[in-house]
Amino acid sequence: MSASTKLIDLNADGGESFGRWTLGADESLAPLISSINVACGWHAGDPATMSTSVTLAKEHEIGLGAHPGFPDLTGFGRRAMAFSPAEAAQAVLYQTGALRAFADQLGVPLRHVKPHGSLYGLLMKDDDAADAVADAVAQMDASLLMVLEAGHCAERQRERGHKVAAEAFADLEYTDDGHIIIDPKNQRRDPQWCADQVADILDGRIRSVNGVESSIRADTICLHSDRPGAVDNAHAVVDRITSKGWTIRSLHHIDQEGS
Amino acid sequence: MSASTKLIDLNADGGESFGRWTLGADESLAPLISSINVACGWHAGDPATMSTSVTLAKEHEIGLGAHPGFPDLTGFGRRAMAFSPAEAAQAVLYQTGALRAFADQLGVPLRHVKPHGSLYGLLMKDDDAADAVADAVAQMDASLLMVLEAGHCAERQRERGHKVAAEAFADLEYTDDGHIIIDPKNQRRDPQWCADQVADILDGRIRSVNGVESSIRADTICLHSDRPGAVDNAHAVVDRITSKGWTIRSLHHIDQEGS
Amino acid sequence: MSASTKLIDLNADGGESFGRWTLGADESLAPLISSINVACGWHAGDPATMSTSVTLAKEHEIGLGAHPGFPDLTGFGRRAMAFSPAEAAQAVLYQTGALRAFADQLGVPLRHVKPHGSLYGLLMKDDDAADAVADAVAQMDASLLMVLEAGHCAERQRERGHKVAAEAFADLEYTDDGHIIIDPKNQRRDPQWCADQVADILDGRIRSVNGVESSIRADTICLHSDRPGAVDNAHAVVDRITSKGWTIRSLHHIDQEGS
Amino acid sequence: MSASTKLIDLNADGGESFGRWTLGADESLAPLISSINVACGWHAGDPATMSTSVTLAKEHEIGLGAHPGFPDLTGFGRRAMAFSPAEAAQAVLYQTGALRAFADQLGVPLRHVKPHGSLYGLLMKDDDAADAVADAVAQMDASLLMVLEAGHCAERQRERGHKVAAEAFADLEYTDDGHIIIDPKNQRRDPQWCADQVADILDGRIRSVNGVESSIRADTICLHSDRPGAVDNAHAVVDRITSKGWTIRSLHHIDQEGS
Repeated sequence: MSASTKLIDLNADGGESFGRWTLGADESLAPLISSINVACGWHAGDPATMSTSVTLAKEHEIGLGAHPGFPDLTGFGRRAMAFSPAEAAQAVLYQTGALRAFADQLGVPLRHVKPHGSLYGLLMKDDDAADAVADAVAQMDASLLMVLEAGHCAERQRERGHKVAAEAFADLEYTDDGHIIIDPKNQRRDPQWCADQVADILDGRIRSVNGVESSIRADTICLHSDRPGAVDNAHAVVDRITSKGWTIRSLHHIDQEGS
Repeated sequence: MSASTKLIDLNADGGESFGRWTLGADESLAPLISSINVACGWHAGDPATMSTSVTLAKEHEIGLGAHPGFPDLTGFGRRAMAFSPAEAAQAVLYQTGALRAFADQLGVPLRHVKPHGSLYGLLMKDDDAADAVADAVAQMDASLLMVLEAGHCAERQRERGHKVAAEAFADLEYTDDGHIIIDPKNQRRDPQWCADQVADILDGRIRSVNGVESSIRADTICLHSDRPGAVDNAHAVVDRITSKGWTIRSLHHIDQEGS
Repeated sequence: MSASTKLIDLNADGGESFGRWTLGADESLAPLISSINVACGWHAGDPATMSTSVTLAKEHEIGLGAHPGFPDLTGFGRRAMAFSPAEAAQAVLYQTGALRAFADQLGVPLRHVKPHGSLYGLLMKDDDAADAVADAVAQMDASLLMVLEAGHCAERQRERGHKVAAEAFADLEYTDDGHIIIDPKNQRRDPQWCADQVADILDGRIRSVNGVESSIRADTICLHSDRPGAVDNAHAVVDRITSKGWTIRSLHHIDQEGS
Repeated sequence: MSASTKLIDLNADGGESFGRWTLGADESLAPLISSINVACGWHAGDPATMSTSVTLAKEHEIGLGAHPGFPDLTGFGRRAMAFSPAEAAQAVLYQTGALRAFADQLGVPLRHVKPHGSLYGLLMKDDDAADAVADAVAQMDASLLMVLEAGHCAERQRERGHKVAAEAFADLEYTDDGHIIIDPKNQRRDPQWCADQVADILDGRIRSVNGVESSIRADTICLHSDRPGAVDNAHAVVDRITSKGWTIRSLHHIDQEGS
């Protein structure tokens, strides 16, 4: 995939309600995004919510992805856990398979897998875990794209022969060496700040929290759906993407049409 | 499928270990049975155990099935829960999909779905729940066989157009009207008692706990793997099946070759 | 306890948030109620939320109670489970003890135990389960009041020698024989309807959904805090209670001063 | 407490069965040990098992302790989790309170709290977490002893004014700087090796895996009950303790009689 075709995917997490509890602006975001990463029951989500989310993806014709996390509902998958590479791979398989069952039932193709929270963080830091997860996903279904942090993490798996979408983040700050800074409080962020960062990403660069600029090449941009103001952020980001002459397309289309 | 071809499947539950805890005689039973129903993490099993069980099925070339249960690890899925038909269907999809991911990764076809414990009991008593589950499984993957209690439960779904394997039980007593009597204590049972009951089943009949005889037509016979003496029971049953001139074949083969 | 002293307790469930998910109007209701029933982690609530809820009870000087439920976060404890009397008693002990740890840490006396959802329903229907729970709670801490449905359920345990608060419901309809009708959808209810029903309860009667009147004698009235409009309902109920010349006092005070 | 009185506590984890799954040699070990640390449902144990374990402690008159762990049944509490000090303290309170409910019901005093697995490991490494846990336990019940690794961890909390029992391990190897080496595989260990290490501990020293000797002062010695050969190890250790002229007494008695 290449940014040179001026196609970009816009993804958001979805299906992060759980049982009696609702969370996220899935209905409002669905018309704005091109890919949705659906929680699979370990950090959020439950079978009924997963079914609803797959239906939402179908109705809005957005790319459906699995969003597996650590088995920690209380901590929303944001507390690091010491998983071995094999445990990480098995956790991803289990959850991705669970979501794919609903996708198959409802006739929606599953397009990608994007790890959640601290499981995503584990893959960023632990190449062995990332290798194990990417290998297992490819063995399970060779058509699936792995969504991984743009830079080393995405590049490594691409070089290992896997289908990868490199991800940048509209609403997170970056370190000087180009890694995202997790915001556990999920605070409101100025929509224009998000739009500016997306403009930078489309231009192939990211500015760190200290103003250090580094290059980035992203296939997809993430907006956090459970952040206050998520819908405002999405509108600002979509406006900026289109005003810059880019088109929002799902990963699947970019993968087929890109470079 | 038909018993007239003298082919019968012998199934046992497997993969009912969980984390640090081991349960069942999977390794000893695998050479004796033709189908294994693998726990999917809600009443027993975990991703590592599921992966091991799929590998075991592959090595022994036995039919792999999903064994979804209620979300009740403490109660081992044996405590009834008031699930709506939709909830039952979603529970089965979730767990079956999770297991299928490991099957796909390891190149083992998933052949059947057999509900566990009180979820099985729910389907025996609640036609709406059974309909919802059978419909959902068929929508998810039309190749999957549903394993359901021989009699009304299996017949109904077969008449509704689903692929069904009717199941009888080697090691459970039956009521006068032909339903199994759950044995929550899983007590040891005389292997010859099991063999005699299997002989009856092959002859198309079942004797109730009160001596009342009724007819039965089974495609598969279940042996409980977590019962003390399970391996002895299996040997006695296998001997009786073969000495009566029947052949043990997995459901998949019976489905293709039968009647 | 006796309604003749014109003291009535007003209780609401609280602490029903869970991890990343918030639920309930605890902060708004706390100034209006005299007792709070705090979820204990099995159907809702988590340690951090429990600690916050105990602090809230302390700040507002309202009676602190445990609100144990079935182990079913996904179903919010509202799906019936087949628990034996011993299992029900152990479930209540476990959760009540967990909450009491936070109460002890923060210096707030634990006053009562009110089962939640379908566990409450089990005790209404199964005298053996109610006996086991009431006995276990009294053995654990003889100072604790059991909150049970006014009528048979409360009377039975009182006659068995236990400290009991009989409960009526402001926002639930009643059957002709005086039992509550669970409203799984938790729909908005007219505040004046609630106030009228409370006026009836204070007058010692309840009108069923069919208009059949029966007598009731309640020590405490429940308002559901997770229902839309809960705070409006609370204001209407409080106004009616006071305009009828009754005083809202926590169960602990009624137990000491009453009759 | 002081080792100079030649009193030593011998503790083992217990109640680590879970639902359908059994684990540990609780019945065989109970006559040999003086303290039992009972799992509280998060890494192992369930309400019925907890009740059984409290009864066992009562019958054998051994000191009852809570053994709280991380919320990770699948990983048996042995996978590290990133818990904040407040989260660690709340996790310990919740579980300790849950066990104390059964202790109160059955009239058995709760004597101590010993964290399990990676939660124990967190307190060894993170002083803030250890402070938060020790403070919370003391606030909950000032009579409770915290069992902590002999050395810095135990000394720090003792200096902070808490009741602490310093613990050494019969069946784990030690690093050169006197910390235990977790053995995730829980392999069988020669009973005489255990007895020799206990003899060293009683003499106030420990030999590391590299033969480096350091001093240790322990109030209690742990034997892992889920290790193969645990009962043999216990017999060897008990024999050595008594042959050296020491007496096995529970922590409670040592705390009252010691130094």
